[in-house]
Amino acid sequence: MVEEILYGIHPIREALEARGQRIREIWVSRSGSSTTVHKILIRARGLGIKVRTFDRQRLEVKAGTTRHQGIIAFLSPYGYAEVETILQDSLARGPALVLVLDGVEDPQNLGALIRTAYVCGAHGVVVPKDRAAPLTAAVAKASAGAVEHCRVARVTNLRRTLDLLKEKGIWVVGLTMEGDQPIYELDLCQPTALVIGGEAKGIRPLIKQTCDLQASIPQQKRLDSLNAAAAGAMALYEIMRQRLTAAPRR
Amino acid sequence: MVEEILYGIHPIREALEARGQRIREIWVSRSGSSTTVHKILIRARGLGIKVRTFDRQRLEVKAGTTRHQGIIAFLSPYGYAEVETILQDSLARGPALVLVLDGVEDPQNLGALIRTAYVCGAHGVVVPKDRAAPLTAAVAKASAGAVEHCRVARVTNLRRTLDLLKEKGIWVVGLTMEGDQPIYELDLCQPTALVIGGEAKGIRPLIKQTCDLQASIPQQKRLDSLNAAAAGAMALYEIMRQRLTAAPRR
Repeated sequence: MVEEILYGIHPIREALEARGQRIREIWVSRSGSSTTVHKILIRARGLGIKVRTFDRQRLEVKAGTTRHQGIIAFLSPYGYAEVETILQDSLARGPALVLVLDGVEDPQNLGALIRTAYVCGAHGVVVPKDRAAPLTAAVAKASAGAVEHCRVARVTNLRRTLDLLKEKGIWVVGLTMEGDQPIYELDLCQPTALVIGGEAKGIRPLIKQTCDLQASIPQQKRLDSLNAAAAGAMALYEIMRQRLTAAPRR
Repeated sequence: MVEEILYGIHPIREALEARGQRIREIWVSRSGSSTTVHKILIRARGLGIKVRTFDRQRLEVKAGTTRHQGIIAFLSPYGYAEVETILQDSLARGPALVLVLDGVEDPQNLGALIRTAYVCGAHGVVVPKDRAAPLTAAVAKASAGAVEHCRVARVTNLRRTLDLLKEKGIWVVGLTMEGDQPIYELDLCQPTALVIGGEAKGIRPLIKQTCDLQASIPQQKRLDSLNAAAAGAMALYEIMRQRLTAAPRR
Protein backbone atom coordinates (compact mmCIF):
# COMPACT_ATOMS: atom_id res chain seq x y z
CA MET A 1 0.00 0.00 0.00
CA VAL A 2 1.40 3.39 -0.98
CA GLU A 3 1.07 5.96 1.76
CA GLU A 4 -0.29 9.30 0.67
CA ILE A 5 1.62 12.23 2.17
CA LEU A 6 0.92 15.94 2.04
CA TYR A 7 3.53 18.56 2.89
CA GLY A 8 3.59 22.30 3.38
CA ILE A 9 1.23 24.68 5.12
CA HIS A 10 -1.24 25.37 2.35
CA PRO A 11 -2.06 21.80 1.22
CA ILE A 12 -2.45 20.63 4.79
CA ARG A 13 -4.69 23.53 5.74
CA GLU A 14 -6.82 22.76 2.68
CA ALA A 15 -6.98 19.12 3.59
CA LEU A 16 -8.03 19.95 7.10
CA GLU A 17 -10.91 21.99 5.79
CA ALA A 18 -11.98 19.89 2.85
CA ARG A 19 -11.30 16.37 3.95
CA GLY A 20 -9.86 16.59 7.42
CA GLN A 21 -11.35 13.20 8.01
CA ARG A 22 -8.74 11.57 5.84
CA ILE A 23 -5.73 12.97 7.75
CA ARG A 24 -4.65 10.33 10.20
CA GLU A 25 -1.43 11.91 11.54
CA ILE A 26 0.61 15.10 11.33
CA TRP A 27 4.36 15.48 11.86
CA VAL A 28 5.91 18.84 12.66
CA SER A 29 9.53 19.81 12.72
CA ARG A 30 11.15 20.22 16.12
CA SER A 31 13.10 23.29 14.96
CA GLY A 32 10.58 26.06 15.48
CA SER A 33 7.31 26.63 13.69
CA SER A 34 5.27 29.63 12.62
CA THR A 35 2.00 30.93 14.01
CA THR A 36 0.27 29.47 10.96
CA VAL A 37 1.59 26.01 11.77
CA HIS A 38 0.44 26.44 15.35
CA LYS A 39 -3.05 27.31 14.16
CA ILE A 40 -3.08 24.20 11.99
CA LEU A 41 -2.05 22.05 14.94
CA ILE A 42 -4.77 23.46 17.16
CA ARG A 43 -7.34 22.70 14.46
CA ALA A 44 -5.88 19.21 13.93
CA ARG A 45 -5.95 18.38 17.63
CA GLY A 46 -9.53 19.62 17.76
CA LEU A 47 -10.37 17.04 15.10
CA GLY A 48 -8.67 14.32 17.10
CA ILE A 49 -5.72 13.98 14.73
CA LYS A 50 -2.46 12.73 16.24
CA VAL A 51 0.40 15.24 16.08
CA ARG A 52 4.04 14.19 16.51
CA THR A 53 7.29 16.14 16.59
CA PHE A 54 10.43 15.04 14.75
CA ASP A 55 13.74 16.35 13.48
CA ARG A 56 13.60 18.34 10.27
CA GLN A 57 15.64 15.62 8.52
CA ARG A 58 13.07 12.98 9.27
CA LEU A 59 10.33 15.08 7.70
CA GLU A 60 12.55 15.59 4.69
CA VAL A 61 13.02 11.87 4.20
CA LYS A 62 9.29 11.21 4.44
CA ALA A 63 8.31 14.14 2.22
CA GLY A 64 11.09 13.43 -0.26
CA THR A 65 11.79 17.16 -0.44
CA THR A 66 13.15 19.99 1.69
CA ARG A 67 10.14 22.14 0.85
CA HIS A 68 7.84 20.83 3.56
CA GLN A 69 7.73 24.07 5.63
CA GLY A 70 8.12 22.04 8.82
CA ILE A 71 4.84 20.14 8.50
CA ILE A 72 3.71 16.94 6.77
CA ALA A 73 0.47 15.00 6.97
CA PHE A 74 -0.30 11.33 6.39
CA LEU A 75 -3.59 10.54 4.71
CA SER A 76 -5.58 7.44 5.29
CA PRO A 77 -5.94 5.56 2.01
CA TYR A 78 -9.48 4.66 3.01
CA GLY A 79 -12.07 7.32 2.46
CA TYR A 80 -14.88 7.71 4.90
CA ALA A 81 -18.47 7.71 3.76
CA GLU A 82 -21.27 10.04 4.79
CA VAL A 83 -24.00 8.79 7.12
CA GLU A 84 -26.51 10.02 4.56
CA THR A 85 -25.07 7.65 1.94
CA ILE A 86 -25.38 4.72 4.31
CA LEU A 87 -28.93 5.78 5.11
CA GLN A 88 -29.94 6.09 1.47
CA ASP A 89 -28.48 2.70 0.73
CA SER A 90 -30.17 1.06 3.71
CA LEU A 91 -33.53 2.59 2.84
CA ALA A 92 -33.24 1.51 -0.80
CA ARG A 93 -32.01 -1.99 -0.08
CA GLY A 94 -33.56 -2.59 3.31
CA PRO A 95 -34.35 -3.65 5.87
CA ALA A 96 -31.60 -1.38 7.13
CA LEU A 97 -28.68 -2.87 9.00
CA VAL A 98 -26.21 -0.36 10.39
CA LEU A 99 -23.43 -1.18 12.83
CA VAL A 100 -22.58 1.60 15.27
CA LEU A 101 -19.36 1.31 17.25
CA ASP A 102 -19.00 3.46 20.34
CA GLY A 103 -15.37 3.49 21.40
CA VAL A 104 -13.83 0.50 19.64
CA GLU A 105 -10.23 1.65 19.82
CA ASP A 106 -8.39 -1.56 19.04
CA PRO A 107 -7.54 -1.73 15.31
CA GLN A 108 -7.86 -5.56 15.32
CA ASN A 109 -11.37 -5.39 16.74
CA LEU A 110 -12.39 -2.56 14.45
CA GLY A 111 -11.14 -4.44 11.38
CA ALA A 112 -12.78 -7.67 12.48
CA LEU A 113 -16.10 -5.91 13.09
CA ILE A 114 -16.06 -4.18 9.69
CA ARG A 115 -15.33 -7.56 8.08
CA THR A 116 -18.17 -9.26 9.93
CA ALA A 117 -20.57 -6.40 9.26
CA TYR A 118 -19.84 -6.54 5.55
CA VAL A 119 -20.27 -10.31 5.32
CA CYS A 120 -23.54 -10.13 7.28
CA GLY A 121 -24.93 -7.60 4.83
CA ALA A 122 -24.68 -4.38 6.83
CA HIS A 123 -25.17 -1.21 4.81
CA GLY A 124 -22.45 0.57 6.71
CA VAL A 125 -20.58 1.15 9.93
CA VAL A 126 -20.68 4.36 11.97
CA VAL A 127 -17.89 5.35 14.36
CA PRO A 128 -17.41 8.51 16.40
CA LYS A 129 -14.48 10.79 15.64
CA ASP A 130 -13.11 11.01 19.12
CA ARG A 131 -13.21 7.53 20.54
CA ALA A 132 -12.36 5.17 17.73
CA ALA A 133 -9.38 3.78 15.88
CA PRO A 134 -8.88 5.53 12.51
CA LEU A 135 -8.92 3.46 9.32
CA THR A 136 -5.24 2.56 9.17
CA ALA A 137 -3.42 -0.20 7.34
CA ALA A 138 -3.72 -2.37 10.48
CA VAL A 139 -7.50 -2.02 10.43
CA ALA A 140 -7.58 -2.76 6.70
CA LYS A 141 -5.52 -5.90 7.24
CA ALA A 142 -7.70 -7.12 10.09
CA SER A 143 -10.75 -6.47 7.93
CA ALA A 144 -9.34 -8.72 5.18
CA GLY A 145 -10.00 -5.96 2.68
CA ALA A 146 -13.60 -5.33 3.77
CA VAL A 147 -12.80 -1.64 4.44
CA GLU A 148 -12.61 -1.23 0.69
CA HIS A 149 -16.17 -2.44 0.23
CA CYS A 150 -17.97 -1.52 3.42
CA ARG A 151 -19.00 2.09 4.02
CA VAL A 152 -17.58 3.55 7.22
CA ALA A 153 -18.83 6.96 8.39
CA ARG A 154 -17.07 8.97 11.05
CA VAL A 155 -19.27 11.37 12.97
CA THR A 156 -18.63 14.16 15.45
CA ASN A 157 -21.78 13.66 17.45
CA LEU A 158 -22.81 10.03 17.69
CA ARG A 159 -25.94 10.78 19.65
CA ARG A 160 -27.21 13.10 16.95
CA THR A 161 -26.57 10.39 14.37
CA LEU A 162 -28.58 7.87 16.39
CA ASP A 163 -31.45 10.39 16.59
CA LEU A 164 -31.26 10.77 12.82
CA LEU A 165 -31.42 6.99 12.36
CA LYS A 166 -34.45 6.84 14.67
CA GLU A 167 -36.17 9.58 12.70
CA LYS A 168 -35.75 7.44 9.60
CA GLY A 169 -37.57 4.58 11.28
CA ILE A 170 -34.50 2.58 12.22
CA TRP A 171 -34.63 0.79 15.52
CA VAL A 172 -31.53 1.46 17.63
CA VAL A 173 -30.53 -1.57 19.69
CA GLY A 174 -27.63 -1.37 22.14
CA LEU A 175 -25.78 -4.56 23.00
CA THR A 176 -24.98 -4.49 26.71
CA MET A 177 -24.20 -6.93 29.50
CA GLU A 178 -27.25 -5.85 31.47
CA GLY A 179 -29.56 -5.74 28.45
CA ASP A 180 -33.29 -6.14 29.06
CA GLN A 181 -33.77 -9.10 26.75
CA PRO A 182 -31.69 -11.81 25.09
CA ILE A 183 -31.05 -10.62 21.57
CA TYR A 184 -32.76 -13.64 19.99
CA GLU A 185 -36.08 -12.63 21.56
CA LEU A 186 -36.19 -9.41 19.56
CA ASP A 187 -37.63 -9.06 16.09
CA LEU A 188 -34.57 -7.99 14.14
CA CYS A 189 -36.18 -8.19 10.71
CA GLN A 190 -37.18 -4.58 11.07
CA PRO A 191 -34.69 -1.83 10.14
CA THR A 192 -32.02 -2.00 12.83
CA ALA A 193 -28.93 -0.15 13.98
CA LEU A 194 -26.83 -2.29 16.32
CA VAL A 195 -24.72 -0.35 18.82
CA ILE A 196 -21.63 -2.01 20.27
CA GLY A 197 -19.39 -0.51 22.92
CA GLY A 198 -15.64 -0.45 23.12
CA GLU A 199 -13.25 -2.82 24.85
CA ALA A 200 -12.73 -0.79 27.98
CA LYS A 201 -15.95 0.88 28.95
CA GLY A 202 -18.73 -0.43 26.74
CA ILE A 203 -21.37 1.94 25.43
CA ARG A 204 -21.25 5.42 27.01
CA PRO A 205 -24.24 6.21 29.29
CA LEU A 206 -25.58 8.99 27.05
CA ILE A 207 -25.47 6.72 24.01
CA LYS A 208 -27.09 3.92 25.98
CA GLN A 209 -29.96 6.22 26.90
CA THR A 210 -30.41 7.11 23.25
CA CYS A 211 -30.91 3.45 22.29
CA ASP A 212 -34.51 2.31 21.87
CA LEU A 213 -33.68 -0.85 23.74
CA GLN A 214 -30.80 -2.77 25.27
CA ALA A 215 -30.31 -6.37 24.30
CA SER A 216 -27.88 -8.87 25.75
CA ILE A 217 -26.13 -12.05 24.74
CA PRO A 218 -26.74 -14.62 27.45
CA GLN A 219 -23.64 -16.05 29.09
CA GLN A 220 -23.54 -19.65 30.16
CA LYS A 221 -20.49 -19.00 32.25
CA ARG A 222 -19.75 -15.54 33.51
CA LEU A 223 -16.60 -13.79 32.51
CA ASP A 224 -16.07 -10.04 32.55
CA SER A 225 -17.67 -9.75 29.16
CA LEU A 226 -17.33 -11.00 25.64
CA ASN A 227 -14.75 -9.46 23.35
CA ALA A 228 -16.35 -6.62 21.34
CA ALA A 229 -15.62 -8.37 18.03
CA ALA A 230 -17.08 -11.68 19.25
CA ALA A 231 -20.20 -10.04 20.70
CA GLY A 232 -20.63 -8.12 17.45
CA ALA A 233 -20.24 -11.30 15.41
CA MET A 234 -22.94 -13.03 17.45
CA ALA A 235 -25.40 -10.15 17.20
CA LEU A 236 -24.83 -9.57 13.48
CA TYR A 237 -25.22 -13.31 12.89
CA GLU A 238 -28.49 -13.28 14.83
CA ILE A 239 -29.84 -10.43 12.70
CA MET A 240 -28.78 -12.22 9.51
CA ARG A 241 -30.25 -15.51 10.69
CA GLN A 242 -33.62 -13.96 11.50
CA ARG A 243 -33.77 -12.21 8.16
CA LEU A 244 -32.80 -15.31 6.19
CA THR A 245 -35.25 -17.57 7.99
CA ALA A 246 -38.18 -15.13 8.25
CA ALA A 247 -41.19 -15.83 6.09
CA PRO A 248 -41.29 -13.34 3.24
CA ARG A 249 -43.46 -10.38 4.26
CA ARG A 250 -44.63 -9.11 0.91
CA MET B 1 2.80 -13.21 35.44
CA VAL B 2 5.88 -14.98 36.74
CA GLU B 3 7.47 -17.24 34.17
CA GLU B 4 8.36 -20.70 35.41
CA ILE B 5 11.80 -21.85 34.28
CA LEU B 6 13.51 -25.21 34.66
CA TYR B 7 17.24 -25.67 34.20
CA GLY B 8 19.61 -28.59 34.01
CA ILE B 9 19.42 -31.96 32.28
CA HIS B 10 17.62 -33.98 34.93
CA PRO B 11 14.68 -31.65 35.71
CA ILE B 12 14.02 -31.02 32.04
CA ARG B 13 14.12 -34.72 31.15
CA GLU B 14 11.68 -35.35 33.99
CA ALA B 15 9.41 -32.60 32.80
CA LEU B 16 9.47 -33.97 29.28
CA GLU B 17 8.30 -37.34 30.53
CA ALA B 18 5.85 -36.28 33.19
CA ARG B 19 4.36 -33.13 31.84
CA GLY B 20 6.01 -32.46 28.52
CA GLN B 21 2.88 -30.68 27.49
CA ARG B 22 3.66 -27.79 29.78
CA ILE B 23 7.10 -27.06 28.25
CA ARG B 24 6.58 -24.37 25.69
CA GLU B 25 10.20 -23.65 24.71
CA ILE B 26 13.73 -24.91 25.33
CA TRP B 27 16.95 -22.92 25.09
CA VAL B 28 20.32 -24.62 24.68
CA SER B 29 23.76 -23.17 24.92
CA ARG B 30 25.63 -22.59 21.69
CA SER B 31 28.91 -23.76 23.19
CA GLY B 32 28.67 -27.50 22.74
CA SER B 33 26.28 -29.92 24.35
CA SER B 34 26.40 -33.52 25.51
CA THR B 35 24.76 -36.59 24.01
CA THR B 36 22.21 -36.44 26.80
CA VAL B 37 21.22 -32.92 25.81
CA HIS B 38 20.94 -34.04 22.21
CA LYS B 39 18.59 -36.84 23.20
CA ILE B 40 16.46 -34.37 25.12
CA LEU B 41 16.26 -32.11 22.10
CA ILE B 42 15.19 -34.94 19.79
CA ARG B 43 12.44 -35.84 22.24
CA ALA B 44 11.41 -32.20 22.59
CA ARG B 45 11.24 -31.66 18.85
CA GLY B 46 9.19 -34.84 18.55
CA LEU B 47 6.69 -33.28 20.95
CA GLY B 48 6.55 -30.12 18.85
CA ILE B 49 8.42 -27.99 21.39
CA LYS B 50 10.37 -25.02 20.03
CA VAL B 51 14.14 -25.25 20.59
CA ARG B 52 16.39 -22.19 20.34
CA THR B 53 20.15 -21.72 20.65
CA PHE B 54 21.76 -18.88 22.59
CA ASP B 55 25.03 -17.88 24.21
CA ARG B 56 25.79 -19.47 27.54
CA GLN B 57 25.56 -16.04 29.22
CA ARG B 58 22.00 -15.53 28.09
CA LEU B 59 20.97 -18.85 29.61
CA GLU B 60 22.72 -17.84 32.82
CA VAL B 61 20.76 -14.60 33.05
CA LYS B 62 17.44 -16.39 32.48
CA ALA B 63 18.23 -19.24 34.86
CA GLY B 64 19.73 -16.93 37.47
CA THR B 65 22.53 -19.44 37.98
CA THR B 66 25.57 -20.87 36.18
CA ARG B 67 24.44 -24.41 36.97
CA HIS B 68 22.09 -24.85 34.01
CA GLN B 69 24.21 -27.49 32.22
CA GLY B 70 23.59 -25.72 28.91
CA ILE B 71 19.82 -26.22 28.83
CA ILE B 72 16.81 -24.39 30.22
CA ALA B 73 13.09 -24.84 29.63
CA PHE B 74 10.20 -22.42 29.87
CA LEU B 75 6.97 -23.77 31.23
CA SER B 76 3.58 -22.57 30.24
CA PRO B 77 1.78 -21.32 33.32
CA TYR B 78 -1.39 -22.83 31.90
CA GLY B 79 -1.75 -26.55 32.27
CA TYR B 80 -3.36 -28.54 29.51
CA ALA B 81 -6.21 -30.87 30.29
CA GLU B 82 -6.78 -34.42 29.07
CA VAL B 83 -9.43 -35.06 26.43
CA GLU B 84 -10.85 -37.70 28.78
CA THR B 85 -11.50 -35.04 31.43
CA ILE B 86 -13.35 -32.88 28.94
CA LEU B 87 -15.34 -35.92 27.83
CA GLN B 88 -16.28 -36.93 31.36
CA ASP B 89 -17.37 -33.41 32.14
CA SER B 90 -19.40 -33.11 28.96
CA LEU B 91 -21.12 -36.43 29.53
CA ALA B 92 -21.92 -35.54 33.14
CA ARG B 93 -23.10 -32.03 32.42
CA GLY B 94 -24.34 -32.43 28.89
CA PRO B 95 -25.35 -32.01 26.21
CA ALA B 96 -21.69 -31.98 25.30
CA LEU B 97 -20.20 -28.91 23.67
CA VAL B 98 -16.58 -29.25 22.63
CA LEU B 99 -14.72 -26.77 20.45
CA VAL B 100 -12.07 -28.32 18.22
CA LEU B 101 -9.57 -25.99 16.55
CA ASP B 102 -7.63 -27.32 13.59
CA GLY B 103 -4.72 -25.01 12.89
CA VAL B 104 -5.59 -21.80 14.70
CA GLU B 105 -2.08 -20.40 14.92
CA ASP B 106 -2.79 -16.78 15.75
CA PRO B 107 -2.61 -16.23 19.54
CA GLN B 108 -5.25 -13.48 19.35
CA ASN B 109 -7.71 -15.76 17.61
CA LEU B 110 -6.95 -18.69 19.89
CA GLY B 111 -7.46 -16.55 22.99
CA ALA B 112 -10.66 -15.03 21.62
CA LEU B 113 -12.04 -18.49 20.75
CA ILE B 114 -11.26 -19.91 24.20
CA ARG B 115 -12.98 -16.90 25.75
CA THR B 116 -16.06 -17.30 23.57
CA ALA B 117 -16.18 -21.06 24.10
CA TYR B 118 -16.06 -20.62 27.85
CA VAL B 119 -18.79 -17.98 27.91
CA CYS B 120 -21.01 -20.12 25.65
CA GLY B 121 -20.72 -23.04 28.05
CA ALA B 122 -18.30 -25.30 26.18
CA HIS B 123 -16.88 -28.15 28.25
CA GLY B 124 -13.48 -27.73 26.69
CA VAL B 125 -11.33 -26.88 23.71
CA VAL B 126 -9.20 -29.37 21.78
CA VAL B 127 -6.18 -28.30 19.72
CA PRO B 128 -3.61 -30.37 17.86
CA LYS B 129 0.00 -30.29 19.01
CA ASP B 130 1.54 -29.50 15.68
CA ARG B 131 -0.60 -26.80 14.12
CA ALA B 132 -1.70 -24.55 16.91
CA ALA B 133 -0.49 -21.66 19.00
CA PRO B 134 0.65 -22.81 22.46
CA LEU B 135 -0.98 -21.34 25.55
CA THR B 136 1.25 -18.33 26.04
CA ALA B 137 0.74 -15.10 27.93
CA ALA B 138 -0.54 -13.50 24.69
CA VAL B 139 -3.23 -16.17 24.39
CA ALA B 140 -4.13 -15.76 28.06
CA LYS B 141 -4.47 -12.00 27.62
CA ALA B 142 -6.64 -12.35 24.52
CA SER B 143 -8.79 -14.85 26.40
CA ALA B 144 -9.38 -12.31 29.19
CA GLY B 145 -8.44 -14.96 31.72
CA ALA B 146 -10.68 -17.68 30.30
CA VAL B 147 -7.68 -20.01 29.85
CA GLU B 148 -7.64 -20.34 33.61
CA HIS B 149 -11.19 -21.68 33.66
CA CYS B 150 -11.68 -23.41 30.36
CA ARG B 151 -10.12 -26.84 29.78
CA VAL B 152 -7.79 -26.95 26.79
CA ALA B 153 -6.48 -30.33 25.62
CA ARG B 154 -3.59 -30.70 23.21
CA VAL B 155 -3.57 -33.89 21.19
CA THR B 156 -1.07 -35.54 18.88
CA ASN B 157 -3.62 -37.08 16.55
CA LEU B 158 -6.68 -34.90 16.09
CA ARG B 159 -8.42 -37.40 13.85
CA ARG B 160 -8.20 -40.09 16.49
CA THR B 161 -9.67 -37.67 19.03
CA LEU B 162 -12.61 -36.93 16.73
CA ASP B 163 -13.21 -40.67 16.34
CA LEU B 164 -13.20 -40.98 20.12
CA LEU B 165 -15.75 -38.17 20.43
CA LYS B 166 -17.94 -39.88 17.83
CA GLU B 167 -17.75 -43.18 19.70
CA LYS B 168 -19.07 -41.37 22.75
CA GLY B 169 -22.11 -40.24 20.79
CA ILE B 170 -20.91 -36.72 20.11
CA TRP B 171 -21.82 -35.29 16.73
CA VAL B 172 -18.80 -33.78 14.98
CA VAL B 173 -19.75 -30.71 12.92
CA GLY B 174 -17.15 -28.95 10.78
CA LEU B 175 -17.66 -25.28 10.00
CA THR B 176 -16.64 -24.68 6.38
CA MET B 177 -17.29 -22.21 3.60
CA GLU B 178 -18.76 -24.92 1.38
CA GLY B 179 -20.77 -26.56 4.16
CA ASP B 180 -23.85 -28.58 3.18
CA GLN B 181 -26.29 -26.68 5.31
CA PRO B 182 -26.58 -23.32 7.07
CA ILE B 183 -25.68 -23.96 10.68
CA TYR B 184 -29.06 -22.76 11.97
CA GLU B 185 -30.82 -25.58 10.12
CA LEU B 186 -29.07 -28.22 12.23
CA ASP B 187 -30.31 -29.51 15.55
CA LEU B 188 -27.47 -28.49 17.81
CA CYS B 189 -29.17 -29.47 21.04
CA GLN B 190 -27.62 -32.90 20.71
CA PRO B 191 -24.06 -33.48 21.99
CA THR B 192 -21.85 -31.56 19.57
CA ALA B 193 -18.19 -31.01 18.79
CA LEU B 194 -17.69 -27.95 16.61
CA VAL B 195 -14.60 -28.03 14.40
CA ILE B 196 -13.13 -24.73 13.21
CA GLY B 197 -10.19 -24.38 10.83
CA GLY B 198 -7.23 -22.06 11.03
CA GLU B 199 -6.74 -18.66 9.45
CA ALA B 200 -4.75 -19.79 6.46
CA LYS B 201 -6.07 -23.10 5.26
CA GLY B 202 -9.25 -23.90 7.11
CA ILE B 203 -9.91 -27.45 8.23
CA ARG B 204 -7.47 -30.02 6.79
CA PRO B 205 -9.04 -32.44 4.27
CA LEU B 206 -8.54 -35.50 6.48
CA ILE B 207 -10.19 -33.80 9.42
CA LYS B 208 -13.00 -32.57 7.18
CA GLN B 209 -13.67 -36.14 6.08
CA THR B 210 -13.83 -37.23 9.70
CA CYS B 211 -16.60 -34.76 10.48
CA ASP B 212 -20.14 -36.15 10.50
CA LEU B 213 -21.30 -33.11 8.60
CA GLN B 214 -20.15 -29.76 7.31
CA ALA B 215 -22.15 -26.69 8.19
CA SER B 216 -21.72 -23.17 6.89
CA ILE B 217 -22.48 -19.64 7.97
CA PRO B 218 -24.29 -17.94 5.11
CA GLN B 219 -22.67 -14.81 3.74
CA GLN B 220 -24.77 -11.92 2.55
CA LYS B 221 -21.79 -10.43 0.81
CA ARG B 222 -18.91 -12.60 -0.26
CA LEU B 223 -15.47 -12.01 1.13
CA ASP B 224 -12.70 -14.59 1.27
CA SER B 225 -14.10 -15.94 4.50
CA LEU B 226 -14.97 -14.87 7.96
CA ASN B 227 -12.24 -14.51 10.55
CA ALA B 228 -11.88 -17.78 12.51
CA ALA B 229 -12.73 -16.09 15.80
CA ALA B 230 -15.82 -14.41 14.32
CA ALA B 231 -17.06 -17.60 12.64
CA GLY B 232 -16.50 -19.48 15.90
CA ALA B 233 -18.40 -16.83 17.86
CA MET B 234 -21.37 -17.12 15.49
CA ALA B 235 -21.47 -20.93 15.61
CA LEU B 236 -21.03 -21.13 19.37
CA TYR B 237 -23.74 -18.51 19.80
CA GLU B 238 -26.06 -20.53 17.55
CA ILE B 239 -25.51 -23.66 19.63
CA MET B 240 -26.12 -21.73 22.84
CA ARG B 241 -29.23 -20.05 21.41
CA GLN B 242 -30.76 -23.36 20.33
CA ARG B 243 -30.11 -24.93 23.71
CA LEU B 244 -31.49 -21.97 25.66
CA THR B 245 -34.63 -21.73 23.55
CA ALA B 246 -35.32 -25.45 23.13
CA ALA B 247 -38.27 -26.89 24.97
CA PRO B 248 -37.04 -28.98 27.91
CA ARG B 249 -36.74 -32.60 26.80
CA ARG B 250 -37.10 -34.47 30.06
